[in-house]
Amino acid sequence: MSDRREFRDLAEPEEAREAIASLDLAPDPETVPLEEARGRVLAERVDADLDVPGFDRASMDGYAVRARDTFGADEADPATLELVGAVHAGAEPDVTVERGTCAEISTGAVMPDGADAVVMVERTSEVVADGEEDAAADAIAIRTSVAPGDHVMFAGADIAAGGRALGPGTEVTPREIGLLSALGVDEVPVRGKPTVGIVSTGDELVRPGEDLHSERGQIYDVNSYTIAAGVEEAGGEAVLYPHAGDDYDEMERLLVEASEECDLVLSSGSTSASAVDVIYRVIEDRGELLLHGVSVKPGKPMLVGGVGDSAYVGLPGYPVSALTIFRTFVAPAIRRAAGKPEPRTATVSGRMAQQERYSEGRMRLMPAGLTEDGSEDTLVYPVDKGSGATTSLVEADGVVVVHPDTEYLAAGEEVEVQLFSPEVRAPTLFAVGEDDPALSRLLDRVDRPRYLAIGSREGLRRLRDGVPDAAVVAGDPDRDPVASLDPTGDEEAVPAEPIGEWTREWGLIVPAGNPEDVTGLADLIDRDLRFVNRDGNAGLRTTLANALADVAGERGTTRRAVTEAIDGFERAVRAHESPARRVLAGDADAGLGLRATAERLDTGFVPLGTQPVRTYANPDRGDKPGVVALREAIDEGDDVFDALAGYGR
Amino acid sequence: MSDRREFRDLAEPEEAREAIASLDLAPDPETVPLEEARGRVLAERVDADLDVPGFDRASMDGYAVRARDTFGADEADPATLELVGAVHAGAEPDVTVERGTCAEISTGAVMPDGADAVVMVERTSEVVADGEEDAAADAIAIRTSVAPGDHVMFAGADIAAGGRALGPGTEVTPREIGLLSALGVDEVPVRGKPTVGIVSTGDELVRPGEDLHSERGQIYDVNSYTIAAGVEEAGGEAVLYPHAGDDYDEMERLLVEASEECDLVLSSGSTSASAVDVIYRVIEDRGELLLHGVSVKPGKPMLVGGVGDSAYVGLPGYPVSALTIFRTFVAPAIRRAAGKPEPRTATVSGRMAQQERYSEGRMRLMPAGLTEDGSEDTLVYPVDKGSGATTSLVEADGVVVVHPDTEYLAAGEEVEVQLFSPEVRAPTLFAVGEDDPALSRLLDRVDRPRYLAIGSREGLRRLRDGVPDAAVVAGDPDRDPVASLDPTGDEEAVPAEPIGEWTREWGLIVPAGNPEDVTGLADLIDRDLRFVNRDGNAGLRTTLANALADVAGERGTTRRAVTEAIDGFERAVRAHESPARRVLAGDADAGLGLRATAERLDTGFVPLGTQPVRTYANPDRGDKPGVVALREAIDEGDDVFDALAGYGR
Repeated sequence: MSDRREFRDLAEPEEAREAIASLDLAPDPETVPLEEARGRVLAERVDADLDVPGFDRASMDGYAVRARDTFGADEADPATLELVGAVHAGAEPDVTVERGTCAEISTGAVMPDGADAVVMVERTSEVVADGEEDAAADAIAIRTSVAPGDHVMFAGADIAAGGRALGPGTEVTPREIGLLSALGVDEVPVRGKPTVGIVSTGDELVRPGEDLHSERGQIYDVNSYTIAAGVEEAGGEAVLYPHAGDDYDEMERLLVEASEECDLVLSSGSTSASAVDVIYRVIEDRGELLLHGVSVKPGKPMLVGGVGDSAYVGLPGYPVSALTIFRTFVAPAIRRAAGKPEPRTATVSGRMAQQERYSEGRMRLMPAGLTEDGSEDTLVYPVDKGSGATTSLVEADGVVVVHPDTEYLAAGEEVEVQLFSPEVRAPTLFAVGEDDPALSRLLDRVDRPRYLAIGSREGLRRLRDGVPDAAVVAGDPDRDPVASLDPTGDEEAVPAEPIGEWTREWGLIVPAGNPEDVTGLADLIDRDLRFVNRDGNAGLRTTLANALADVAGERGTTRRAVTEAIDGFERAVRAHESPARRVLAGDADAGLGLRATAERLDTGFVPLGTQPVRTYANPDRGDKPGVVALREAIDEGDDVFDALAGYGR
Repeated sequence: MSDRREFRDLAEPEEAREAIASLDLAPDPETVPLEEARGRVLAERVDADLDVPGFDRASMDGYAVRARDTFGADEADPATLELVGAVHAGAEPDVTVERGTCAEISTGAVMPDGADAVVMVERTSEVVADGEEDAAADAIAIRTSVAPGDHVMFAGADIAAGGRALGPGTEVTPREIGLLSALGVDEVPVRGKPTVGIVSTGDELVRPGEDLHSERGQIYDVNSYTIAAGVEEAGGEAVLYPHAGDDYDEMERLLVEASEECDLVLSSGSTSASAVDVIYRVIEDRGELLLHGVSVKPGKPMLVGGVGDSAYVGLPGYPVSALTIFRTFVAPAIRRAAGKPEPRTATVSGRMAQQERYSEGRMRLMPAGLTEDGSEDTLVYPVDKGSGATTSLVEADGVVVVHPDTEYLAAGEEVEVQLFSPEVRAPTLFAVGEDDPALSRLLDRVDRPRYLAIGSREGLRRLRDGVPDAAVVAGDPDRDPVASLDPTGDEEAVPAEPIGEWTREWGLIVPAGNPEDVTGLADLIDRDLRFVNRDGNAGLRTTLANALADVAGERGTTRRAVTEAIDGFERAVRAHESPARRVLAGDADAGLGLRATAERLDTGFVPLGTQPVRTYANPDRGDKPGVVALREAIDEGDDVFDALAGYGR
């Protein structure tokens, strides 16, 4: 580790932006078929090279006439014109309209020679010679007068040959497609999409879909796919290269290969210092380093420069950091190269839901989540699970840029959130609390919910702080979880409106067939069994602790003595299925869990009780559509509770 | 025409919406590769089926230790631990950390057995046995104490197996791609894209790129491509079918074929009554007609029903009407079937720039353009060139829904514009006036301008009415066009701020080599030559008329006598190149035009003079970025004027 590179002279974010702007990412223009032009940007002006329409065109069904022949005609005194023929759309007229005559004409048909106006069919009647019933009309009574040009669209009236149709830089949407097709343009000159090569580094990366060897520390590659999607969203074309380890030669080979094929090369992946070091050296040897290290959190180790003939940006390795830096610094450059404007929905304004302190002296890109309060105002709250968490990607909606001099953001302060994607919007429901399989299914019936399974205790705490819309709390039937959280014992102090509840059966998950013949809590205390517990925020653990307290009472000892006798009481895992999976893997003889989990994973189950799962709303948001939808989902959730073993009302 | 079908019992728009909502357009869900999932919508919930990370993971470069061994260590009194090995990311640990030992570890590596915390490398130093300079360290001084779990991300801490990752209905953006890849998901279950067949009707339609026979009344097919792009924008998959004429058997065959392959069939194209009639009969025979005729303008002849097993909607034939009805009634149903929410940028609010009267007793979907006034407020103005014009597609930005009972919209009234596409935004510059080839090039240097070449006279009129930002006026050197438009003769009355001007040489376009040996206006008056003029709004025509008045004065006659002597003085065509094209086609011996046009089209040219082209801004909008950009483009436009024959300052 003697060779570690320190980023001491950090560049200001503005310098990084300028350095990236100085790189040339713009590819050559290209030509695409009309059918593929949507969303592209015109590379040059398109002038009409024909008249539209190309001929004088009837714009009504009716009769083509010489206007002068109709002067003075009205309902009382129609003009009668001899019918000399008909002209249909898509056919060349084979008739001439002489004085005193007319020709039937359809909308869109070519005006026949001699005619200069059309009379709508509604203002005419057929005239049949006396006594010749059922015969074809040989004259038409015109019951109105028309002026030259009436109901005729003259050649070039829509757009004339030589006219400016669309300018360079125009984004092609359906209406531009319409105008281009009117002009007969089937090959559209558009700006090229910048090709962006993505080289992920790290020996531990595996492509999704391939086998993962966790014992060797492998993880799925997140950044390549996230950034590739971001590149395409910004109007670029992403090319994924194989993963590079920390080997200099391999990294050099891949970066040079990517630079030959792409307008921009991005590297991302491993955050280990040695990988960053290797990239740094390759860029110095085979390209140019404009700056290394930017005074921004996250993203300090960002590199900007060139490799071969291509531009180069090195992104940080953690997924949220990589997407944040990409979105803030790189996506604008790709959009510029592709000629696309920044989407209008790129940002959203809101108020900070809580105070946030910060004082590191560099610009911070704070991941933030959005929710709406009861008045449909947007609330913004910081999301900080450590940048290594991929779930932050979906728990945050974007980032708030915090100036280096800002020491804290006050609750209620107005901030602007740069959304991760233009399609991102605040969830309709933001709920937190217990991890529960019935809840997971009920949430499927709510449009765009966000649920953070942070446990009952932490869930209630956050509900009290006023950020989420609802909290889901698993507890004991005879204890009110809302009151129990309130340190003053004053139930009114925790604002929470019950919106529905159900029950679930809990107990011990044991291997199929219960080989150790576990019968209850006493076995955990008295026998040499390896147990797996849930974490301290889980309502399931609270209920277990209360049950153990009862056992301790019966035995005349303390709860602590009892829990200390259990091998693994402190071995806590995070989600409702996690203990069962440890049992299945042979790492434990018993785990805390639900009957529903035991059925789903085909394990044995030792029932210990039934606990209520209660849902509470922030009282100001009881009418929020997402809260209403959750309440309805619970009310109408019998099918969900029936389908899960051990569930009920 | 005896068989024409009248739409007498028109359905209310709400009924049409409900009828379309009652149709089943939703295709089966499908599975797509992760790389293609962006923009799709999850068909089902995605739960984690593995822990992320899958192992206890170091989140810093440093040393894996037993936390208890560091208790009490600080800068002054470090704990020294024996270095027993190293663990790298992507490798299985081959070392166990016993009491009193530590192992080097990289970010992302698996925590070795025995270790429960990581000490950052920055808080350590290597210890080399005395006298063994340059030797590898065999012990590490730990200068801080750590707690169990410090700098370790435990297995499942990000997301645990069995946890709810993403709900059904989630739109897949880069961040969801990130979470899916973390879970190793490479095949994503998504909602199917509704397949929408488009059958355009009309014998006169020709596909873009094919030869057009205007003499037979052919036009390029606009609706198929416009609607196909709209279908794709809404999340559907468009399939274009061959054009159908008005023949019953052909129409039936195509509609049935489309119904077998698609979830929804749209017909559109010809507006002739007979084509509508044929479709009507096919739908009655081979499907079901839920309603025909909706009380909305445009779009009265809209049909809703089914054909075969597919849903069916018949759109009106004029492009703006077709896109308007599609956008208002059909796109929401496609989005619903695809599971996509309405884009947040689907609408924009603004104030009416002028009064608009309306009183037809049915709902009106008024095509409207957008511009911004000097205070960046959005102004909305009606666009009505007759719905047959395809240029309305790009001159309007969307539609304003006007209630049947609304008799007029007052100037300044707040209205909501439903944009044609979510990407549509107000142009940065909205200018009107003379058709001029230099201007066309200068506009290429302005970002997203809108220019309507409606002629100098009409342009000035509109500038006076306050809607456009600027007007471009070609006239005579010694007449002030701004003053001349003002009937009171009071120059101050027309608000217009000059922002730049140039000159152009005008004259008569004649065939190459000037075979008739035309020398000037006298030849037009005195000889038997066929002339083509420009329309009355063209500044070029005004200048010609003034020149003819001078000739008349010299001859002691009236201007009228002179113009009546010219064969074709009233034969007016619309754009600056149009007369030249008539000359080229052999339809005329001379046409009014510019030297630049003669050079471009390789015709002969008889110079008659030089006229100024002056640009005026709405005085309230001189600082609007688009106006500033136009002013700069003119100021710096010498290369444009140099490149065009006959142009100058």
